[in-house]
This record gives sequence, C-alpha cells and structure tokens, in this order.
Amino acid sequence: MADTATTPLSELDRDIAVTAVASGGEEATYAADLAPGWVVGGGLNGGYLLAVVGSALRQHLPDKPDPVTISASYCSASVPGRAEVRVRVRRNGGSLATAAAELWQGEELRLTTLATYGDLARLQAGSNPFERVSAAAPELPPRDSCVPASFAPEGFKRVAPMLDRFDLLLHPDQVGWAVGEPTGRGAFSAWFRHHDREPDPLSLLQVLDALPPVTYDLGLPGWAPTLELTCHLRRVPAPGWLRVQHVSRNVAGGMFEEDCEVWDSAGRLVAQSRQLARLPRPR
Amino acid sequence: MADTATTPLSELDRDIAVTAVASGGEEATYAADLAPGWVVGGGLNGGYLLAVVGSALRQHLPDKPDPVTISASYCSASVPGRAEVRVRVRRNGGSLATAAAELWQGEELRLTTLATYGDLARLQAGSNPFERVSAAAPELPPRDSCVPASFAPEGFKRVAPMLDRFDLLLHPDQVGWAVGEPTGRGAFSAWFRHHDREPDPLSLLQVLDALPPVTYDLGLPGWAPTLELTCHLRRVPAPGWLRVQHVSRNVAGGMFEEDCEVWDSAGRLVAQSRQLARLPRPR
Repeated sequence: MADTATTPLSELDRDIAVTAVASGGEEATYAADLAPGWVVGGGLNGGYLLAVVGSALRQHLPDKPDPVTISASYCSASVPGRAEVRVRVRRNGGSLATAAAELWQGEELRLTTLATYGDLARLQAGSNPFERVSAAAPELPPRDSCVPASFAPEGFKRVAPMLDRFDLLLHPDQVGWAVGEPTGRGAFSAWFRHHDREPDPLSLLQVLDALPPVTYDLGLPGWAPTLELTCHLRRVPAPGWLRVQHVSRNVAGGMFEEDCEVWDSAGRLVAQSRQLARLPRPR
Repeated sequence: MADTATTPLSELDRDIAVTAVASGGEEATYAADLAPGWVVGGGLNGGYLLAVVGSALRQHLPDKPDPVTISASYCSASVPGRAEVRVRVRRNGGSLATAAAELWQGEELRLTTLATYGDLARLQAGSNPFERVSAAAPELPPRDSCVPASFAPEGFKRVAPMLDRFDLLLHPDQVGWAVGEPTGRGAFSAWFRHHDREPDPLSLLQVLDALPPVTYDLGLPGWAPTLELTCHLRRVPAPGWLRVQHVSRNVAGGMFEEDCEVWDSAGRLVAQSRQLARLPRPR
C-alpha cells in the first residue's frame, strides 16, 4: 500500500479533493475548489466535474469506495473556483448504495447526478464468473505513430488548458477534422494516460469525457450540449495506458448519442458511457 | 386530435394515471395505483414503473410533455397497490426541464430517477437537420413466422401476467432458451405492440424493458437485478408495430450491460436504453 504521508497527490486527486462542511438530516455538504486547469472551451470539462462529484460520494460512503454507475444532467456551465457537492443517500444496504448528488456554485445548480456506489473488486470476487465479451478494443497504431493532442494549434490550446493534464494520442486517421478534413464516420479513438497517476474507477469518470465530441469528425464543429451522460464502471483498471473509443450510431432529429468505451492495458473493457447531446447549430 | 371525452383510455394509460395530491416547497406528490396486470416474476415490470414515474413528470411539466432522457435506480421490488411519485424540479428553462422523481410505497423507496423533459417534436423541428445513422434495425421474419409470447408455458404465464398486456412476437431463432436450448449469443429481437394504443414517447418507456433479459439467451436464467437503467427517447414514434432489440456486448465481472433499441414502423430508431445488471447467481 502506498505511504500516503509521503506520496504526493496527483494533479487530478488534488483538483477533485473535497472537505466535509455540513451534515444534517438526509443531506451532507462537501466543499470543492474547481481548478482552472480543467477548462475546455466555455467551461470546465464535464468528466472532471463528474469526478469531483464522485470524490464527494466516495468520501461519504467509505465502505463503498467505487462508482459503479453514475448518471448526470448538466444544468449550467461551471467556472473555476468554489463549489459545493450536496449528497443525499437514497439507499444504503448490502454491497451497494444509491445516492443523489448535486454540484452547486452559489445559487447555481451546475450538475445533478444519481449514482450507485460499491467496492468493484469485492463485487466481482463474489459474483457469477461467467464471461462473454463480443465488444472489441479499438485498433490503434503504436503510440509513436499516433498524434499527441499537444500538437493542437496554439489558439486551440489556449482555450483548452485541459489538454495539458494528460497524454492523449489520437488515431492518425482521425485527426483530419483539425485541418478541415473530417472523415465523416463519427468515431474517435486514442491512447490515454494521466501524467502522474495510474487509473482507478474514479479517474475513469474523467477519461470517459476527455475526447472531442464525435460531431467534429462529422464536420459539425461547435458546442454540442450534453443532455445526459451515464457511466458504468465495469472493472478496477490495470495500471498503464488506456485505450478510449467514442462512436455515434444514430445522429438524427437534432441529437446524437455518443458511446464511449475505455479499455485497460490488460485488454479489459473497464468503463462504458453513453451520452445524449444536441447537435451544434448549423453555421 | 382525439376526442378525449369519448375515447376510452388504453389499459396502459389507465394503469399509469396519477393524481396530484400535494405541492409545496420544491416537491410535488402524485398518487398512483400500481396495477397487478404488470407483474412479472417477483415484482412489477421495471418499464411499467418507469412509465408511472414518467406519467407524473408529464403532468407536472405540461409544456414539456415528453421524456427525452430518464435514468433510474431500482431500490426495492414494487407490489401492486398504492404508490406515490415525488417530483423535484431541478431546472426548468428554455425548451428542456430536468427533474428528479421517486416512486414510494409507504416508507419504502422503490425507484429513484433523474429525467430530462421537453417537447420532442418541437425540439426536432428547430434543430440541426444533419442525419447520419449507421445503426440498423433488427432483421425479423414476418410477424406470422415469429413466436408469440402467449405461446409460453402456462406455468410461466401464471407468474408473468404482464405478457397479456401486449403482442410480443419473438424471433423464431431466439426462443430456444424456453426449452433449454439458448443460442449463447446474448441477443433478442421481437415485434411489439400494445393491444389498444399506438406508441408515444411515454409508452416507449415500458417497451424498453418488456423483453426477457439477454441472460436467458446465454443459458443463465434467473433474476438479473438491474443496477441502473437509462432511456433516451429520440423521436415521436410513428403508429404501428415496433421492432425491439436487446443485446449485450460485455458480460464480465459479474455484470452485463443490456442495450435496447426500439424502431418504429417508419424504420426510425425512436428509443434507446442501456441498463447495467448483475448476473444471476450460478445454479
């Protein structure tokens, strides 16, 4: 076990840390300080915000440390600075707990969520060992043949300081959108690693929303507001590089679903998410 | 427009009707009467319960009549009889509202949900017309070559009165599980129609959870408890028969995700859902 007295916290762990400030009745409140390093475009990254909420839930449910599922509705754009996470446990018994949690800044609701927490390793150890996996990990060239997000133009990086938080190596066949030549397929895949920590179920919440929206690959750049995002954490990830894949199969009626999968270095599908988002307005 | 004064309500509409009983502060309460006709196995069908909650939300948000997204955690098994839906609006502005809603029976929380409501037809009319659909509708033989759920053995139908609520015609290649010969693929597809009503976004909540769990097709019969279920309503469905498909791509770690798609008679993908469930215990 790591010696927490001497091991410095990773950047992500520092930036999602929360402090209990109030507990009474059925609601508990945790203070957070949203870090400017996770800004991308007009607000803070949705996956980072989810990890902040997830961090408060973990602190509130010490014997059930892992997110198993979390669903979120994004209500308004967050800004760096003080925030509160308000947790209401809805059920806690056996190996799982269900809780509602909201992220507030002053009088503004940023994010409302519904989550299931448990101990992923323990859940798995005591469960039916049957396996059947037809999902396939994304086929990615070796990392030195992929395109680092740090190659993005300076103008882009200036509005997306989040890109400095991790190594993101994009499939070389899927970066044409950056120069006005999207593939039109609506899919992205990449290698991913936080600079200074190994993945765990909580950090995967950030990973599940780290890539650009697939609409960029469809020739529809611009803001694609998320209506709803649900994450399923399927396993404790092995250390090492992750492979991440985004795809949409039904872009229609002004909306699109975006399915994300995260695969670990052992070749396991460790997290899945699906979001429903609105298409950017035509230009 | 139908003359609601003389058109009798459909069975589903009768069984999901709610009555406002209290409204104060930020919470409103609606009374419901859960109908025994929707029992399947040890409790009421999860899709029916979601439609009951959805019915209260529709009544509470008159200018935003359609579910667009709803995520649910099932906390305890519901029983026929009195229930309450408690609604807390979290955000209501522009074309969308976000609300939390819970289904209670006495002191027991049955179901907690987070939903986005709007007017689907209006949302679509004012949106980016770009379309790209790579999802494919399930390939089903003609209806008279499929296997009606009403052919199930009497012993099965006795514990699943829900099967009398709709026409469900299963793909003939996927019914082997009923005689101990599952295909092992983990997929189901079927024709679906409620007896006495055309589909609408609310009724689709029931349709998204009407088929048996794909675990039956994997040779794992038994109760597969749902941890979380999220539905996305993508379009107002056309009248007529629906095609429904369930599939799982990652059965591992004691859990499986089940993706459901509902296609309407016009060949449109009108609803998607994903649930995370635990595998049945080994026998």
